[in-house]
Amino acid sequence: MIITQTYTQLYRDALLNDVIPFWQIHSIDQQDGGFFTCLDQQGNVYDTDKFIWLQARQVWTFSMLYNKVEQRSDWLKAAQHGADFLKKYGRADDGSWYFSLTRDGRPLVQPYNIFSDCFATMAFGQLSLATVNDEYAQIAKLTFEQILRRRDNPKGQWNKAIAGTRPLKNFALPMILCNLSLEIEHLLDRQLVEQTIDECIHEVMDVFYDPESGLIRENVTPDGQFSDSYEGRLLNPGHAIEAMWFIMDLATRRNDRALLEKAVRITLDTLDYAWDTQYGGLFYFMDSQGHPPQQLEWDQKLWWVHVETLVTLLKGYQKTGNQVCWTWFERVHAYTWAHFPDPINGEWYGYLNRQGDVLLPLKGGKWKGCFHVPRGLYQCWLTLNSLYLAE
Amino acid sequence: MIITQTYTQLYRDALLNDVIPFWQIHSIDQQDGGFFTCLDQQGNVYDTDKFIWLQARQVWTFSMLYNKVEQRSDWLKAAQHGADFLKKYGRADDGSWYFSLTRDGRPLVQPYNIFSDCFATMAFGQLSLATVNDEYAQIAKLTFEQILRRRDNPKGQWNKAIAGTRPLKNFALPMILCNLSLEIEHLLDRQLVEQTIDECIHEVMDVFYDPESGLIRENVTPDGQFSDSYEGRLLNPGHAIEAMWFIMDLATRRNDRALLEKAVRITLDTLDYAWDTQYGGLFYFMDSQGHPPQQLEWDQKLWWVHVETLVTLLKGYQKTGNQVCWTWFERVHAYTWAHFPDPINGEWYGYLNRQGDVLLPLKGGKWKGCFHVPRGLYQCWLTLNSLYLAE
Repeated sequence: MIITQTYTQLYRDALLNDVIPFWQIHSIDQQDGGFFTCLDQQGNVYDTDKFIWLQARQVWTFSMLYNKVEQRSDWLKAAQHGADFLKKYGRADDGSWYFSLTRDGRPLVQPYNIFSDCFATMAFGQLSLATVNDEYAQIAKLTFEQILRRRDNPKGQWNKAIAGTRPLKNFALPMILCNLSLEIEHLLDRQLVEQTIDECIHEVMDVFYDPESGLIRENVTPDGQFSDSYEGRLLNPGHAIEAMWFIMDLATRRNDRALLEKAVRITLDTLDYAWDTQYGGLFYFMDSQGHPPQQLEWDQKLWWVHVETLVTLLKGYQKTGNQVCWTWFERVHAYTWAHFPDPINGEWYGYLNRQGDVLLPLKGGKWKGCFHVPRGLYQCWLTLNSLYLAE
Repeated sequence: MIITQTYTQLYRDALLNDVIPFWQIHSIDQQDGGFFTCLDQQGNVYDTDKFIWLQARQVWTFSMLYNKVEQRSDWLKAAQHGADFLKKYGRADDGSWYFSLTRDGRPLVQPYNIFSDCFATMAFGQLSLATVNDEYAQIAKLTFEQILRRRDNPKGQWNKAIAGTRPLKNFALPMILCNLSLEIEHLLDRQLVEQTIDECIHEVMDVFYDPESGLIRENVTPDGQFSDSYEGRLLNPGHAIEAMWFIMDLATRRNDRALLEKAVRITLDTLDYAWDTQYGGLFYFMDSQGHPPQQLEWDQKLWWVHVETLVTLLKGYQKTGNQVCWTWFERVHAYTWAHFPDPINGEWYGYLNRQGDVLLPLKGGKWKGCFHVPRGLYQCWLTLNSLYLAE
């Protein structure tokens, strides 16, 4: 039908003619290597610090486009430009990845954050597929192994919680480990990959999933129970919904229809819970008991939450045919495209207040880079295109 | 004139008939000791964790009221109730203060935050004035000495910044040290007190003050220069204005008219810069170069910012007669009283969105307790009363 064709075109064009060129034009630091990510409305650099999360994610994005969309030499060159900077400056002596560097690569913030390592693994894993450079593959593999060793105490000496008083485990790591093991599947034993997937599905869908509310918790006790504390009550709807498309991909890989249906149900329950019926859009943080959350930014509307939700809804619709997914897709699509893209200067705003007005007029910062928007646009384009072709 | 009399009455009544009774009724944990601070709109407890900042600040508030307003036994009893809990459970083996405890006093978060120690010093120092208990005095003194030893590396092992790459010093510690040395003046050598005051005035008014903008920076390089980084560009207007009333008190103590006038000028320049001309109220965080700040909550209107500003403006008016201070006082007073107090359930909301609507319907939480509102109401009452009497 004409609708899916129009949507397909929109997501493809935004990716290839707007978002990717924006980062190619504005973010590449020709002087010191790596990428600028703190870009204002027009793409001007307003801060030159280099955050490992965002350096690595941009390497991943350009490598992924090269691998999946077209073998364009400018994309590969951009990916290698970032990888060279990361390889040269990104690691501490023990091989763990710093959190941030100065423009010229001097370390600023210690490797306290294991997600720096996760995104470095993704970056070098995806780039190793695009090149035949064994050094990139080795960096990915060694970093992944180090993550597995650190997983039980990811914050190490920087952990401020006192061990034992209220042990909690967090949703992010099992979720990302599963994604990572697929990203570098070509470098790992098949058995390790399948075992990691088993664990991930169990953790996400049995341990962090709360059958009573139908929602995914951000933190639970080591044996999977509810903790009546700020951390234990925390809900991060965008995070839960993003996880559901990872799960849907795994369910497809394993041809597990029940798992697919469960992921769709969790997605729709989360949307019902977290959709702002007054102003539209999805809340950023909520408290499962309805108490005030700690996060002052709880009611803001964030770009990644909405982009990831679009991906999940399209996959849910594609894989199960559930019409409610399509209805929600159109609602979230309308909100997202009315609020986030900047038609004048290109790319997307990241942070809106509850009412949907721009809160910070930036295209990139400490946490927003060249990742969720292009990955989401690519995923939506891919799914929409196969829906269109199947008609 | 009738105006100052009406204002005096308002601030006094809010303190004695609304705010203090609210905390006496709702926050005292008769079972396990200490105070509940996570109180919803009606005063119901929604979380039982005990944060050392807020435990100590509440001890300070009740002790201060006992010392300054009236020797009421229920106030002293409340202060001792909190102090007993703190004394029993609050410290790690090395005498530094944890950040938070469970309801029954088990340590939850490590002593990474030196302000826990600062507020403990204030609490036990003020309580030692109310009682003749030498143990309280010793706790205050020993904690203060430990703060002085830790001041060059306050975060210790939990510091995530890499030493040397971009050293910065923060405004909060010199400011609070000065206030602390006055709080426990009765326990310290006179010379140490005067030396600490000298250092504080120099740091705040010469080092952190930027003569070009007329504003106070939150972070500067060790030699007092601007750092063009997120931290270096950060402005916290409420913090700067709060510091100005500490400085005004010091200027009065030293009979230093030029210092008084400078503190008034900084207050008024900060108000001009940080007042939200669209919706009213003072912004929480700003970037000195006009770039997007890191803090997503930058545009919110916080209770303590407005309460502290009222104190500073009244002191500025009282001590210099500058009419602009009075005009601003009336404007900030009108905003504050229209938005923060809850006439139905009592006490004040803490967090409003930019538009002035309640963002979190709480009276207390992890950071809001029994401190800024009662201290501010008391200070305003005191100043208004002396303005009234002088007429």
